[in-house]
Amino acid sequence: MKTVLVLEGSSRPGGNTERLTNEMLEGIDRKTIYLREKTIVPIVDKRHDKEGFSKVDDDHDAIMKEVFKHDILIFSTPIYWYGMTGIMKNFIDRWSQTLRDSQFQMKKEMENKEAFVVLCGGDHPRIKGLPLIQQFQYAFDFIGLSFSDYVIGQGNKPGDVRNDRYAIHVAKALNLILKSKISF
Amino acid sequence: MKTVLVLEGSSRPGGNTERLTNEMLEGIDRKTIYLREKTIVPIVDKRHDKEGFSKVDDDHDAIMKEVFKHDILIFSTPIYWYGMTGIMKNFIDRWSQTLRDSQFQMKKEMENKEAFVVLCGGDHPRIKGLPLIQQFQYAFDFIGLSFSDYVIGQGNKPGDVRNDRYAIHVAKALNLILKSKISF
Amino acid sequence: MKTVLVLEGSSRPGGNTERLTNEMLEGIDRKTIYLREKTIVPIVDKRHDKEGFSKVDDDHDAIMKEVFKHDILIFSTPIYWYGMTGIMKNFIDRWSQTLRDSQFQMKKEMENKEAFVVLCGGDHPRIKGLPLIQQFQYAFDFIGLSFSDYVIGQGNKPGDVRNDRYAIHVAKALNLILKSKISF
Amino acid sequence: MKTVLVLEGSSRPGGNTERLTNEMLEGIDRKTIYLREKTIVPIVDKRHDKEGFSKVDDDHDAIMKEVFKHDILIFSTPIYWYGMTGIMKNFIDRWSQTLRDSQFQMKKEMENKEAFVVLCGGDHPRIKGLPLIQQFQYAFDFIGLSFSDYVIGQGNKPGDVRNDRYAIHVAKALNLILKSKISF
Repeated sequence: MKTVLVLEGSSRPGGNTERLTNEMLEGIDRKTIYLREKTIVPIVDKRHDKEGFSKVDDDHDAIMKEVFKHDILIFSTPIYWYGMTGIMKNFIDRWSQTLRDSQFQMKKEMENKEAFVVLCGGDHPRIKGLPLIQQFQYAFDFIGLSFSDYVIGQGNKPGDVRNDRYAIHVAKALNLILKSKISF
Repeated sequence: MKTVLVLEGSSRPGGNTERLTNEMLEGIDRKTIYLREKTIVPIVDKRHDKEGFSKVDDDHDAIMKEVFKHDILIFSTPIYWYGMTGIMKNFIDRWSQTLRDSQFQMKKEMENKEAFVVLCGGDHPRIKGLPLIQQFQYAFDFIGLSFSDYVIGQGNKPGDVRNDRYAIHVAKALNLILKSKISF
Repeated sequence: MKTVLVLEGSSRPGGNTERLTNEMLEGIDRKTIYLREKTIVPIVDKRHDKEGFSKVDDDHDAIMKEVFKHDILIFSTPIYWYGMTGIMKNFIDRWSQTLRDSQFQMKKEMENKEAFVVLCGGDHPRIKGLPLIQQFQYAFDFIGLSFSDYVIGQGNKPGDVRNDRYAIHVAKALNLILKSKISF
Repeated sequence: MKTVLVLEGSSRPGGNTERLTNEMLEGIDRKTIYLREKTIVPIVDKRHDKEGFSKVDDDHDAIMKEVFKHDILIFSTPIYWYGMTGIMKNFIDRWSQTLRDSQFQMKKEMENKEAFVVLCGGDHPRIKGLPLIQQFQYAFDFIGLSFSDYVIGQGNKPGDVRNDRYAIHVAKALNLILKSKISF
């Protein structure tokens, strides 16, 4: 029985990305971490300092511990300025520190996990969101996390995504795929 | 006489991105804003709330006022996880609020400006940094800012970029181009 | 009542791309041009020659006349080496000549049409096929053709795509979307 | 002493791509294959046919034998419709056959070679040519060919590229890099 964790990067509740994620996960048990509710300090790059990274007192380690517990990771973010939100970016930037943290073995932890990405945007997201998909691919490759698939929804006003038949169909397909993975 | 503003997204001083930017701007007067020294609150997307965005008490407005004063904008950021730093992303995310702020006319202000981008990264940046270039293009298009050119440097340890002959040559070319634009 | 034309770039019949296209167009009248059955000479770029392009005696003009007659264009190509097939590329390359051919008004003809793209590939097509989607976008933008949406299927052996639930769901969504556009 | 082979995909002599390639290779011995002068039949994909690929009687095998003899491969193509020319695409498409041809060991041959790419285009090539760079990366990865670097020039009318200071500086950097590689 596999378990699902949603890393939710929206700046507010009830947006299109959250709705599309819910559509995709209908009937699927999951834990959701709303990154906006957490304290995540921007990384200070100390990879090349003699003393290395300084311990940071925020929620990042706790989130990573939760990440390591689950098999299927859903990265869910609205498209802000053609990228992930700054909130999610600060979370991911800190992976450079996690990778060097001796209390974790991040790459080893990631080996048997897989990731899905959920994006929503207002300006031609299925075209202009593609660089973001490529970035997720590069990032997942770097940490050894398998990138299974993604859905990109169109929407401006909250609720719009329900009228995006394309995205809703993809969400349904991913729902079936996820269900068969979980019970496998 | 045109003026140059550098928006510097690094998390620390003295990195490769800063060095490459300095190479490109040798002999050119400019003002630099180190975004890491500023307080920039992540956006809370209220585009669809009745009351609209709430006034935020941080440094974003002051930075934008400085942006509006200059003709040539240099977006300088290390490549973190194949994107701009979270620090710079939070700065750009807030443009959604600036665009709706009646004290500014952001699109009108941008009309006659042009932008250059400086990136440095350690993992095949001239390939894996390309989605980030495409995102800058989409973002600049959205606000009506002309995207003139970019340089992508390779480097891991501070100072490495000096050995990247490709990037140094591009920086020199852009130096000449900038000088002729400024004195035009 | 709108009409549909498929421009099919496969090198052989019965492949996954053709199957996915058929899935998407189930119950929809259309004409299909198999580019492999046509004679299309590679362009010789004479945009800058005094005499301009020379008249070419092949099937390209006849295909373009057919293109102009339809409202919805489906560009259907397997992903070969992360791009469209050379067969389809030679067809598109010649647009540079069509654009300058006084018997046609290509941009004006394209104004009220829209395009869909169908891709199939064997090597992570929903990631590695994305640059091709971006190229179609740039090309369609150039000729003023609206890019409505796309589906990317996974398959190696003929028939594989039927097991790609994601792609089949997208094909179904596009089938509904196309049907409502046609009868509108 | 390493040797250099240029695979030139232009449809005509004397264009900007050729000029930029010459700039990059000034003072460097090389052999150039003008693909437009060769007969290269579009691939017919028979990967999944029982009998496999049929022997094709054209210049492709001879070109590949030449490719295998050299250490540094320059892929030089104008940007046509945001991709490589159909002429070059047909050449590359046939690699699927070469990979399965028992007279060759294509992947083994590629192991110690490296590639450079030269592009020229008229419509924002340093932005809109990037998907093509990504495709070259994917293709080179697939055959195990190392992708060293690239230059993208701007030009419409023949000769324009000489005024592209950026591209000329990159060509000069690559010239130095190539010279040091060759004599290494």
